[in-house]
Amino acid sequence: MSKTNPGNFFEDFHVGQVIRHATPRTVTSSDATLYTALYGSRFAVQSSDDFAHSLGYDRAPLDDLLVFHIVFGKTVPDISLNAVANLGYAGGRFLAPVYPGDTLSAVSEIIGKKENSNGTTGVVYVRSTGYTADGTEVLDYVRWVMVNKRDAASPAPDPVVPELPAALDPLVLGNAAPLLDLENWDNDLAGSPFRFDHYAKGEKIDHVDGMTVEEAEHQIATRLYQNTAKVHFNQHTEGKGRFGKRLIYGGHVISIARALSFNGLGNLFHITGINGGKHVAPLFAGDTVYAWSEVLATADLEGRTDVGALRLRLVATKNRPCADFPMKSADGKYEDGVLLDFDYWALMPK
Amino acid sequence: MSKTNPGNFFEDFHVGQVIRHATPRTVTSSDATLYTALYGSRFAVQSSDDFAHSLGYDRAPLDDLLVFHIVFGKTVPDISLNAVANLGYAGGRFLAPVYPGDTLSAVSEIIGKKENSNGTTGVVYVRSTGYTADGTEVLDYVRWVMVNKRDAASPAPDPVVPELPAALDPLVLGNAAPLLDLENWDNDLAGSPFRFDHYAKGEKIDHVDGMTVEEAEHQIATRLYQNTAKVHFNQHTEGKGRFGKRLIYGGHVISIARALSFNGLGNLFHITGINGGKHVAPLFAGDTVYAWSEVLATADLEGRTDVGALRLRLVATKNRPCADFPMKSADGKYEDGVLLDFDYWALMPK
Amino acid sequence: MSKTNPGNFFEDFHVGQVIRHATPRTVTSSDATLYTALYGSRFAVQSSDDFAHSLGYDRAPLDDLLVFHIVFGKTVPDISLNAVANLGYAGGRFLAPVYPGDTLSAVSEIIGKKENSNGTTGVVYVRSTGYTADGTEVLDYVRWVMVNKRDAASPAPDPVVPELPAALDPLVLGNAAPLLDLENWDNDLAGSPFRFDHYAKGEKIDHVDGMTVEEAEHQIATRLYQNTAKVHFNQHTEGKGRFGKRLIYGGHVISIARALSFNGLGNLFHITGINGGKHVAPLFAGDTVYAWSEVLATADLEGRTDVGALRLRLVATKNRPCADFPMKSADGKYEDGVLLDFDYWALMPK
Repeated sequence: MSKTNPGNFFEDFHVGQVIRHATPRTVTSSDATLYTALYGSRFAVQSSDDFAHSLGYDRAPLDDLLVFHIVFGKTVPDISLNAVANLGYAGGRFLAPVYPGDTLSAVSEIIGKKENSNGTTGVVYVRSTGYTADGTEVLDYVRWVMVNKRDAASPAPDPVVPELPAALDPLVLGNAAPLLDLENWDNDLAGSPFRFDHYAKGEKIDHVDGMTVEEAEHQIATRLYQNTAKVHFNQHTEGKGRFGKRLIYGGHVISIARALSFNGLGNLFHITGINGGKHVAPLFAGDTVYAWSEVLATADLEGRTDVGALRLRLVATKNRPCADFPMKSADGKYEDGVLLDFDYWALMPK
Repeated sequence: MSKTNPGNFFEDFHVGQVIRHATPRTVTSSDATLYTALYGSRFAVQSSDDFAHSLGYDRAPLDDLLVFHIVFGKTVPDISLNAVANLGYAGGRFLAPVYPGDTLSAVSEIIGKKENSNGTTGVVYVRSTGYTADGTEVLDYVRWVMVNKRDAASPAPDPVVPELPAALDPLVLGNAAPLLDLENWDNDLAGSPFRFDHYAKGEKIDHVDGMTVEEAEHQIATRLYQNTAKVHFNQHTEGKGRFGKRLIYGGHVISIARALSFNGLGNLFHITGINGGKHVAPLFAGDTVYAWSEVLATADLEGRTDVGALRLRLVATKNRPCADFPMKSADGKYEDGVLLDFDYWALMPK
Repeated sequence: MSKTNPGNFFEDFHVGQVIRHATPRTVTSSDATLYTALYGSRFAVQSSDDFAHSLGYDRAPLDDLLVFHIVFGKTVPDISLNAVANLGYAGGRFLAPVYPGDTLSAVSEIIGKKENSNGTTGVVYVRSTGYTADGTEVLDYVRWVMVNKRDAASPAPDPVVPELPAALDPLVLGNAAPLLDLENWDNDLAGSPFRFDHYAKGEKIDHVDGMTVEEAEHQIATRLYQNTAKVHFNQHTEGKGRFGKRLIYGGHVISIARALSFNGLGNLFHITGINGGKHVAPLFAGDTVYAWSEVLATADLEGRTDVGALRLRLVATKNRPCADFPMKSADGKYEDGVLLDFDYWALMPK
């Protein structure tokens, strides 16, 4: 029996199966610092213990996407080592703040499985949960991936396709943010004069700035998440592959776009839910990422007058500024240069 | 009204104006570690809690230039987003040690303003102050920048040009260093047998080593400082610009040169003041930085027998070793390859 | 007298000489995080305070090789600045766990010296010891380096060549790991179902994955270790040198190979001893590192039933997958692409 991890194939998954992932990791302020250095994020709540504490947090929580990437990374060796494609996300909920000193672990449950008509691949639906050492759930989300079959001749299982929400109900979100002492929210320190009521459904914001990505940067980030997907790291094999180069982890694009979105959404301090996300095109080192946002909806949170929720579409492009809000063309296809179409809920003070 | 920050133009500044900057940031030992990894700095006081504590510090303070860069970075979105050039520094004073756990914020006051004769730009003089959460001032400095006018037709303001010191009086410096328990200063651990009395005015030191800079390195550093100046990050636009490539943050050059200067100035443990600095030429990724120093003056500090102050000119070059101390040619212009001419006071044990 | 460090030449060393090195450094969780981000290491004991504490550690100790690199780095300015080659290692012992907050220093003793027949160089044998602020020795090892003579005419000293063990006795190792509470060793969290008894002498394991190295990565790593060897950092001079490019620190290769070896040796949580190591060929940025291991021996530790020791040969290659376990060809020479032949003892739970 081989000592190395061959990854799981389509046949290896069964609905109801629970997989406890390696490696637990204690996150520290150093993860926050390195995250800042990799993306240039400037949200005050995640940057300053004092700012966060004055609002009601214990101290500065880790960036929500950093938590997402660390949890996601743990699932890779068990879920997507033999994946052909990461097809989508749904129902991502941030359930509790994560602070320096917390140890993050992850567990996944297989919630659906359906063979493709070609008989060589199938789609596996997985709900993954990140939790801390005392069992507190900090994040859960569903993703579905196309996975190779080990043996094309193995029989197709009965298809099980879970019902997934197109969007989360904002009322069930927000538990990862304490009730804020709004008197201490300082727009100057936060970097934006615009609060919840300044934003309206349909509004589009070009985030203006662009960020060029280097191989060393995305590799350092992806290893920080202990994400072992081979395509991000091995030029020797990728050089002979479809693109001739290493593929950048899709989560890296989300984090760059989120950091760029500070310019226009500076007070949007906390992601509460991920409705869905599509990696439209691959990103490579040397490309420059731009981003724009559209307000898809606004919502009040039950029992909370301190914050409101914005539902946003965050679109990232490569080598294409976003003054014209590039998205889909008349034929329904994404325009050239669009990298990411990400749909999420986030909180802003009122 | 646009949600994104358009930056301030010449007309937007007025003398006496006070600007509180985003984003406060809690610095930690992780900033110190990343700084070490980015520059290879080896000064013992900033590297070892035990060494620093034995001398009278609470623990290892953050590197002075790291503090400078973090404070400087905060001023960029408000002061220099529309800057044509960073013209100079003066009167920089390090006022208190910064320790891991401190939260740094910055505020600026506009102290002067003068339109240029071309009518399209002007010079703005700014005093910026960095402080911790309890209000302790840790750094202040003046810089002046050339900023675009929004409208060339707007009338020129009455010129106000502040009087700035050509050099700081060393007697007013030094408060950021405790009285040192010199018995615990161990030359072997510090890495140099040379103390204050070994250096004399006029002495020149070639720091010998060279350091090649990579895009990923300066981008990671500049984002660590949350400095958003566009020219450092966007190859898509810079590729079509004057140089065809990203410009490296001038402060990155200062930090490389300071780290190289350990070889020759190993006991120069603390920068107390910045008299002035000029970025003579741009640095690009792939270039190799060298440095040399000249002792411009030596001084005793009133009431202190533990340390003396050296006033140094720190010169950095690119792709040019410094055995011949490259500086200005006969016509008064800087020689080819000179990047930086930096004038500062720093302390060395006696 | 020059203020800069000229490094020591062959004549400057004498047997019995003790050299206390600069710069003491307080290591923190930030070093662990950056190490993870640079190599992608996934060993649970070094990643999770909770996992480590449940087994008997105070908290997650720093990676053994990180400790090695930091101690090694301190010796460079005094031992190998004028080195022609790093010839070998022997007798490396990890003596106590190193935790965040510890301050690491290093001292070396010259234990042998022999001039080469060419009269221009000689070999110096050095035992280096790393210790924490309270004097606890955490690591010692011997290395021998070929060093230039300052003056070819200086007389050859009486040769002193120390007797060095070809391999360490595993019984004298293991003190840096506490007695483990094995009930808490969770294979799922650790990432491997294979324990000590699953491995047998002669077994070979291809670690499958490859990791491409970037200039920014090895420079950041090598500066993190405050290793100043010029060949790693200066493209301006190395571009004109033998290889035309910067040489990657050999320790970087060891750490990449060790991180890759997680895939196949996931429960091998702690390196106890380094029997020897040979850097067979240079590594350059852009190359992809692969690795394989061979179990050279297995051993019980006296008085311990919790863990056993594996003696392993860890071989790294560049741009060459290791399915065929590349090593030496019939003529006894290393095959093309082999980078590293590293012989070490490490512990695995029973």
